Amino acid sequence: MPRVLSSEVVDHVGESVTVKGWLHSIRSLGGVVFASLRDRSGLVQAVTEDPADADLLRGLGSESVVSVSGRVAREPRAPMGMEVKIDGIEVISPVREALPMQINKAVISAGLETQLDCRAISLRSPRAQAIFRVQHEVAASFAEFLGAQGFTRIHTPKLVAAAAEGGADLFEVDYFGRPLYLAQSPQLYKQIMVGVYERVFEVGQAYRAEKHDTARHTNEFTSLDLEMGFIDSHEDVMAMENAWLCELAGRLRERCGEEFRLLEAQVPEVPQHLPRVTLSEAQEAVGRCIGEPDIDPAAERAVSAWALDRFGCEWVFVTHYGAEKRPFYTMAEPGEPGLTRSFDLLFRGWEITTGGQRLHRVEDYEAKLRGLGIDPAAYGFYLAAFRYGMPPHGGLGAGLERLTARLLGLRNVREATLFPRDRKRIAP
Amino acid sequence: MPRVLSSEVVDHVGESVTVKGWLHSIRSLGGVVFASLRDRSGLVQAVTEDPADADLLRGLGSESVVSVSGRVAREPRAPMGMEVKIDGIEVISPVREALPMQINKAVISAGLETQLDCRAISLRSPRAQAIFRVQHEVAASFAEFLGAQGFTRIHTPKLVAAAAEGGADLFEVDYFGRPLYLAQSPQLYKQIMVGVYERVFEVGQAYRAEKHDTARHTNEFTSLDLEMGFIDSHEDVMAMENAWLCELAGRLRERCGEEFRLLEAQVPEVPQHLPRVTLSEAQEAVGRCIGEPDIDPAAERAVSAWALDRFGCEWVFVTHYGAEKRPFYTMAEPGEPGLTRSFDLLFRGWEITTGGQRLHRVEDYEAKLRGLGIDPAAYGFYLAAFRYGMPPHGGLGAGLERLTARLLGLRNVREATLFPRDRKRIAP
Repeated sequence: MPRVLSSEVVDHVGESVTVKGWLHSIRSLGGVVFASLRDRSGLVQAVTEDPADADLLRGLGSESVVSVSGRVAREPRAPMGMEVKIDGIEVISPVREALPMQINKAVISAGLETQLDCRAISLRSPRAQAIFRVQHEVAASFAEFLGAQGFTRIHTPKLVAAAAEGGADLFEVDYFGRPLYLAQSPQLYKQIMVGVYERVFEVGQAYRAEKHDTARHTNEFTSLDLEMGFIDSHEDVMAMENAWLCELAGRLRERCGEEFRLLEAQVPEVPQHLPRVTLSEAQEAVGRCIGEPDIDPAAERAVSAWALDRFGCEWVFVTHYGAEKRPFYTMAEPGEPGLTRSFDLLFRGWEITTGGQRLHRVEDYEAKLRGLGIDPAAYGFYLAAFRYGMPPHGGLGAGLERLTARLLGLRNVREATLFPRDRKRIAP
Repeated sequence: MPRVLSSEVVDHVGESVTVKGWLHSIRSLGGVVFASLRDRSGLVQAVTEDPADADLLRGLGSESVVSVSGRVAREPRAPMGMEVKIDGIEVISPVREALPMQINKAVISAGLETQLDCRAISLRSPRAQAIFRVQHEVAASFAEFLGAQGFTRIHTPKLVAAAAEGGADLFEVDYFGRPLYLAQSPQLYKQIMVGVYERVFEVGQAYRAEKHDTARHTNEFTSLDLEMGFIDSHEDVMAMENAWLCELAGRLRERCGEEFRLLEAQVPEVPQHLPRVTLSEAQEAVGRCIGEPDIDPAAERAVSAWALDRFGCEWVFVTHYGAEKRPFYTMAEPGEPGLTRSFDLLFRGWEITTGGQRLHRVEDYEAKLRGLGIDPAAYGFYLAAFRYGMPPHGGLGAGLERLTARLLGLRNVREATLFPRDRKRIAP
């Protein structure tokens, strides 16, 4: 009999079906055994009073993979009001050991480190499944929205000869005997690609060899990047992100209601025009980091809380960071000495995007690099793009895991990372 | 005046518009100057007889970025039968040097190595743009088709502790003082994820530290991976790929007609049921590698040519490779000693996919690893998935750049790689 998904059982009342999946939980009530079977579409209840089948089910460990055949009957007390009255069970992969952690309860009692240690099991919990279903929609939405806006998807190398974002926080790779580095971001390449397609995006891994140990950082993450040409200023980049976030919120509301309910999270409201404040306005508003070129994570939380109060919005763009805290390719704001056409997007207390307008004239790059004591020749392949004609352009980068975590109100970005890598964790 | 794209000019006959882009080519005819302007949507002709504007244009190097305003007029000899009669030119980024190679001709005379050296420029040629527009559609099609088939997109780590595909061809990374390796494929992780979602896919970078120097290999590539549970055999995986390729061909025909014309390539026909032959049948048919567990690239070309002749099809699945040539996780074919439930897909002479059914019982993995002299404990995080219930499953991996190259009839996979990495090339 062809397989029916648990979500499709409701369409087969009175018929015989076969469902296949994992034994999520079982419950005995006298001689009756209720089994909850989990497949990719959800849960379905199967029930038997047959002594042999009941014994078989009772003897199987949680997460055993089984195929169950039987007639579909209405049962108001079962999920979706349906259950399968078993008349045949095939054990596909029996489990003989107790699970290292329970995954069939609404709340996972195991701590985060235990969950990460047992990732093959902890990811199967409905809670973890919901997190990465939402992440799937975030990544799909980014790609599909930008595709419709005339952006071309690119795949740039992660093995690079130099830092794009400055600093020494690079992982070194032994590349046939010579040193290369894992890319911190696709920055230089996506700018080159603006010269080709005007509008490009990438969803790819990025690496930071920073020795941080915070709830917001890992050393490998998935970067959502876009870069676009023929802009007037960083405002055009912010408007593009704003439009994407509107689309994303609609998509999540449409497709992920169940996931958000399970995680007790709210799909955020995204106004057509997210509030914008300058860095100095933000610093004044919260009385922190005043006069500095940046704000620290505590000030970000304070600015986010202040913006929620002031604008009634969980999102706030902070613009015009100080030049010394932004990378060399950042465009200065004319008439505002020391300030840049840059922005961060804060959401529920965390910085989730960094972006801005970039320099586009080769003379500006050469002067900037020389001022930093760097020989422009070291960036020859990159400067070629500017030497041979580049439009005003800008872009942004956002961490997929960080955005997912904030959307779902998770406290640690690792909960939204399938297999996180940090200073202490290299497995699974 | 708001910007109009070159493809939209046709909708503004008789109106004044502003177009912005790169000076693709210019041509003088007496006192008249014709400029071909390139933007992300294509080319548009702009023309002037004004001596000052004509001088300005003649003085600009190719690839200068300009904004041109003027009235749209019908002109049968211009592309799309339209041209812009210039009444204002703003130079956004002038180019003052000759390009390192010509990119405005139908055929690029520079050799491949020169094109790769000058990637920021060579990618701007209409020919290169067409290649990566097709690649964009291939990747988008893979993600959208699988999403609609109930697959969840995953992002697995590229920093790993052990080889998934066997062999010693790994790049070592200095990870905070200890050695990790760049992932050869997401194999182990995508199998673990079958235990979570049944159906998963990934589009991500993969690395092979092989010292090959062929037209089909680079050391970093983009891998299209899928893995699916509750299959009967590798045939179900082949059927899923077949269905995707049907969808892809339709999409390319619909969206990339111009790109295929420019590259003088044909979108392949994809029958509903691609031909399948066993490895031994293929070996017999071409009289090569008979009795061996695999076929070499020359035999792949011969089999592909034979299949075109025999089945009238540019695609052919070759199945049942010898166990010693397939990785440890490969399922044996019952009743066929030494053979596996594995397949390659050959297309226009190249192997473009490798896949198969995997083992799914923990005892089978433990026995297999011990037989290879490997302590199963080394794969503990992976075997946990099987210890706690896994369905029969299988999947495949395909190189995005290789598939793109074959679709477009390109001789070298580097032409379909934005910034290739090989033993000799680490830049740009």
